[in-house]
Order: sequence, then structure tokens, then C-alpha cells
Amino acid sequence: MTGPRLTSLAESLPSTVPFVGPETQERSLGRPFRARLGANESRFGPSPRAVAAMAAAAQDAWMYGDPEMADLRAAIAAHHAVTPAHVMVGEGIDGLLGTLVRLVAGPGDAVVTSLGAYPTFAFHVAGFGADLHRVPYRGDHEDPEALLDRARATGARLLYLANPDNPMGSWHDGTVIEAMINALPQGALLVLDEAYIDLAPASATPRIVADDPRVIRMRTFSKGYGLAGLRVGYALAAPDLIRAFDKVRNHFGMGRIAQAGAMAALADQAYLGQVQAQVATARDRIAAIAAANGLSALPSATNFVTVDCGRDGAFARGVLSACIDRGLFIRMPGVAPLDRCIRISAGQPGDLDVLEEVLPQALNAAARG
Amino acid sequence: MTGPRLTSLAESLPSTVPFVGPETQERSLGRPFRARLGANESRFGPSPRAVAAMAAAAQDAWMYGDPEMADLRAAIAAHHAVTPAHVMVGEGIDGLLGTLVRLVAGPGDAVVTSLGAYPTFAFHVAGFGADLHRVPYRGDHEDPEALLDRARATGARLLYLANPDNPMGSWHDGTVIEAMINALPQGALLVLDEAYIDLAPASATPRIVADDPRVIRMRTFSKGYGLAGLRVGYALAAPDLIRAFDKVRNHFGMGRIAQAGAMAALADQAYLGQVQAQVATARDRIAAIAAANGLSALPSATNFVTVDCGRDGAFARGVLSACIDRGLFIRMPGVAPLDRCIRISAGQPGDLDVLEEVLPQALNAAARG
Repeated sequence: MTGPRLTSLAESLPSTVPFVGPETQERSLGRPFRARLGANESRFGPSPRAVAAMAAAAQDAWMYGDPEMADLRAAIAAHHAVTPAHVMVGEGIDGLLGTLVRLVAGPGDAVVTSLGAYPTFAFHVAGFGADLHRVPYRGDHEDPEALLDRARATGARLLYLANPDNPMGSWHDGTVIEAMINALPQGALLVLDEAYIDLAPASATPRIVADDPRVIRMRTFSKGYGLAGLRVGYALAAPDLIRAFDKVRNHFGMGRIAQAGAMAALADQAYLGQVQAQVATARDRIAAIAAANGLSALPSATNFVTVDCGRDGAFARGVLSACIDRGLFIRMPGVAPLDRCIRISAGQPGDLDVLEEVLPQALNAAARG
Repeated sequence: MTGPRLTSLAESLPSTVPFVGPETQERSLGRPFRARLGANESRFGPSPRAVAAMAAAAQDAWMYGDPEMADLRAAIAAHHAVTPAHVMVGEGIDGLLGTLVRLVAGPGDAVVTSLGAYPTFAFHVAGFGADLHRVPYRGDHEDPEALLDRARATGARLLYLANPDNPMGSWHDGTVIEAMINALPQGALLVLDEAYIDLAPASATPRIVADDPRVIRMRTFSKGYGLAGLRVGYALAAPDLIRAFDKVRNHFGMGRIAQAGAMAALADQAYLGQVQAQVATARDRIAAIAAANGLSALPSATNFVTVDCGRDGAFARGVLSACIDRGLFIRMPGVAPLDRCIRISAGQPGDLDVLEEVLPQALNAAARG
């Protein structure tokens, strides 16, 4: 009696996961975290109107969601002054990135990203057998010139850049992104991950013609809109590319509650404005707590602050581990030299009280080794 | 300015979708359906406890769902007397089938199914470039012997069978499935789609040892549990195969509301019992309405009834079309000879009143051509 052989590609893949969830860590610790500031979720929650819409939709959950997601796509299109044919909705940016990689890059195809950038993109590239090329950050920023050079050298099909960036919180002006698009080699597609753009200054948003075939933008309801647990992201791109998603996507994958909640969240821009203000206040306080502990906070255009612990990766990992042990869930960049930092999500005042209490203890613990 | 090239596989795929949603048809008709009996959704809805759990979880939707889905997998495991390592949860059976095909079958690999069986499985097989072989039904049943013969002849990696069957509503005794597993050629995996098993007689459930590496069972909260719009399905298989899903799945794809709703639905087995009784009553009435119109209803172990319209596919398509025009959403099998039938989901009494009113009109309209 034997089981199925996996494909040679599947056989070759490791069983590692892009991120360990906080629930896994809580099970391991044997108690819940005191503050949950590691996954850049929105501690300010979704709009109450979105909560009400989801609760109402729960009654109707016996019906499949509209597989064309017509109402939600129309609302997103109106918000961005494009047409629904420019919009695809999927199970978070993670889900959309997977489908995009599947459509565009297979074994032997080159894909370019930054060393230390979003692990889930790398997970999908590996998962479809494409070759991932990584270029270093330039300081605390992704490096458009180096990314373009590597894309030219490798004949890359996809070039991934997050603006604002995760895990560093840094950002480029929209004009830098516009110049980058104009400098793309023929046939390369810029995957512009704008997960955090709702928390960034307006100047970070590039002007992109809706029909430009050289770029696909990824947006999400998980960050500014506070709906990470609903799993709704969307892509904005030229209609040809959007249509290609229909060839392979899970057509009934977006449920009814998800579509209703996202619609209501998008309609409540006033609430998003409040969240933006709360995030700005939280960023300032995280920076102040860092400074009080002799650390420097990096400027952030996101709902998190990356704090330079001033020493090497081993030290920052020690700080992180001591925070976890004390009930503070945070994360950190995975590779040098970014891994001298820890990353702290914007929190409610009570969450940041925990940070203020725990951080000096964690620094002491890490310094003792 | 050019866009990205798609992979040659993606380029070769058609833009057709497995199913057109009722919302698309409503937009085309310009009015909502009077009765929604086409997608085998549960008109009896989810458990009120599941609705309450989803509404409560909406407040917490700012948090990602546990990517390991530990609580839900533990509950499912307990329900089936297996361990959580035998359980994978995904975005409906559709999502799980896509991931499974991706793991096991690629270009050049053979996959076997029945001619007229679940189109979404065929969609995924095409989407990953594997070769799909189809064997005819034997009467109104999928044909285990013919499926096995074709699997042997082609060296198939996957063999798909739904028990009970969609679109015919027929079923095999569990002992037939057990014999089929024992007759599988070495290295072939039986994909046993049990989406409708919650509405079937107990004898339709095969006895399968949890660690048997030759079979993976697919279950869903979309049918008996009435949560099609939540998108939660699960697979039961040997731990090695379950673990392989972690290599490629969308790890944060199951949202918080989805996990909470499924947990609550599973816990309310008394409600499922009520639904089973309501479905049985509805099946009987659909059969009676069919008989009153001179048609014969096929026996069903599902939440739908397939009705033989007694003539050819063109006639049945005429009946279907006339039903749609009159505000009754139903579907029908796609290929001959199954396409002499129409397929009607179990409905509330008011839904079946619409069927009773519309069916004779539709038969007349189709007979007139």
C-alpha cells in the first residue's frame, strides 16, 4: 500500500511556512499574549459598519458569494476611478500573489525581489518552481535601480516591490515608482505591493494609467481597513491581465460575508481617516519608547514601526525572544543587515503600555545574553 | 509597452469558468430569481449557533485566522475519530481540489474522472496541465470498474469519484468504495468527494482506515451545514499527504469568521439532523411534482433531485431555459446522456411552490420549441 507520488516540484519543496502564527506561539507558551503587535494587524479594528454588514451577511451564508464579485469590484473600481475590468478580488494579497506567479512564472523563469522582502512572495515563487533573484536593500530602502539591473540581467518576468516596504516601513515617493515602471525591461511586470499604502503619505502613491500593462498593484482590506481575518485583497491592472486570473482562480473562493464586509469597509472612508490618525499617534509613541531605551525608530509609512536595536541580528533575536517570553508578540526582519531591527505594529494605548514595560526588560535580558 | 507573457500553460487555457453564478444570470435577466435552487446550497440555512458565532467573530476580524487552524482541525478530528494531523482545512472543496491536483499531477500525468462529473475538478486538472481521462457513467451512476480500468491503463495519479454523485444524485454503498480502494493500481490516489455525504444514508459511508495512503476524502460545510458562502471544506487523509499541503497552500487563507462559523456548525449536530429531515421532505415533494408532470425523479442521496425530462439534451436545455426565464434558478448536467435531466436543489416549501407553478409552463414552452 503506497500513497501518491508528489510531482517532482512538490517533492522538492520544504515544509517550512512563510510565517508562524501567534496562536502557535501561544500554544507553545501555554498562555495568550498580553499584546498582539507582530502581524501588523489593525488594533483599531474594522469600521463598525463593516462589522454590522458581516453580521447581517452571516444570515445569508447559505448562499455562495457572487463568483464575479460584481458589486465589490464595481465599488473598488469607483474608488480608484477605473472600471471593474481593471479589478480582481482574491483571498488576500497572499492569494493573489500566488495566482499571479502561477500565471506568469514557471520553472526556469526569473523573478526578482529584495533580500529580506515579503517571504510569502518568495514562497509562491518557489512553489511554482521559478528562479528567485534577490538584491540587497540600500540602507533601509528597497533599491529600485538594483532591482531593475537584476531584472535586465536575468530577463525577469516579475519584479516585486512593496511600497511602503515591509519589514522596514520605509517608502519611496510615487515619482520613484513611476520612473521605475518606465525603466522596466520589455516584458517584465512590476508587482507593486501597496498593502500599507492606506497608512502612507499621499505622495507615496504613484500615478499609473489604468491600462498600463507593465504593472499590477496589490491592495488589501487587512491593514488600514482592519480586516485581516476576512481575507480580502484586490489587484489593479490592465484588463488583459485581470482576465487571465479567471483561467485558474478559485472562482467561488470569495465568500459572501467577505464581500459584504469589504464593501462596507470601503464605503466608510471616514473611519479609515480615524485609523490613520490613531496609527500616526501610535507610531510616535513607539518611537518615543524606543528613544527612551536608547534605540532609534525608523521612519514609517505603515501601521508598524521598525526599531533598530543598534547591534547585530543575534542581539535583536534575543530582544525579540525576550519580548515573546514576556507576552509581547512582535516580529523582526529575517536576514542581515535588516535583522538588527525588531518590528512593532501600531497598537492601542494599552498595548503600547505593555511595550513600554517589556522592552527595557527584554533589552536587559538580551544584553545579559 | 507590453505586458507580461503568461506561461505557455496559462496561455493555452481557455477563459471559461466552471459555473456561471446565479447573480450573473440575475444581472442578465434584470431581476432576482424567485427561487434559488440551482447551486445545491442549503435553503434551510446554517445553524443559528453558527450565525451567532460568525457575528461574534466579526468583531475580531482585525486578527488573521490561526494559519494552523488548530481548534477547527481538532474539532473535525474528534468528529471523525482521527487526529488533527489527518485533517486539512481549505477554501471549500474547490480550493482543496486545486491544491491537491497541484501537488500530485502536472504536465504529462494522467488523471481519471467520469464524463459529466464535477467540472471544477476538471478545471483544476486542466489548470495544472495534467491529462484528464473521462469514462462514461453506467446508467445514472459513476462506474467504479471502468474508472479503475482507465486508471490502470493510463497509470493515473488521481482518480476522482463523488459519492454521492453530483450531478446525478446517485450513490454507491460504502462497501463498493472500500472494494474500489483495494483495487486501485499502485501509486494512484482516490479523491473521494463526499460533499453530499451528510445527506446520504449511513450505508454510503465507507470504512476507511485513517492512515490509508490510497485515498483522500473531501468534506464541506457548504451543503448539509448550510455554509456555502463561508468557504470551508476539509480533507481527511494520511498525515504524509496532509502535511504536503503545507508546502504550497495559502497559509493564512482561512479567515477568522470562517473558522469560527465552521466550528459552531460542526458542534450543532442536532441542527444537521433537522436539515436532513427537511431535505428528505423536499426531495419527496420534488419527486411528486416531477411525477405530476409525467417526469421521473432519480433516487437521491443529496440535497438535490435530478429529474429525467424523458427526451434529449436539447429538450432538457429548453426546459431549463424556460425555468430560468420564469425566475426559477436550476441547473442541469453538461453532457449526454446525463443532459436529458435537470437538477433541482431541495428547497423551502415556498421555493417548491415556485417549482410546482413553473415546471409545467417550462415543459410546455420546451415542447413548443
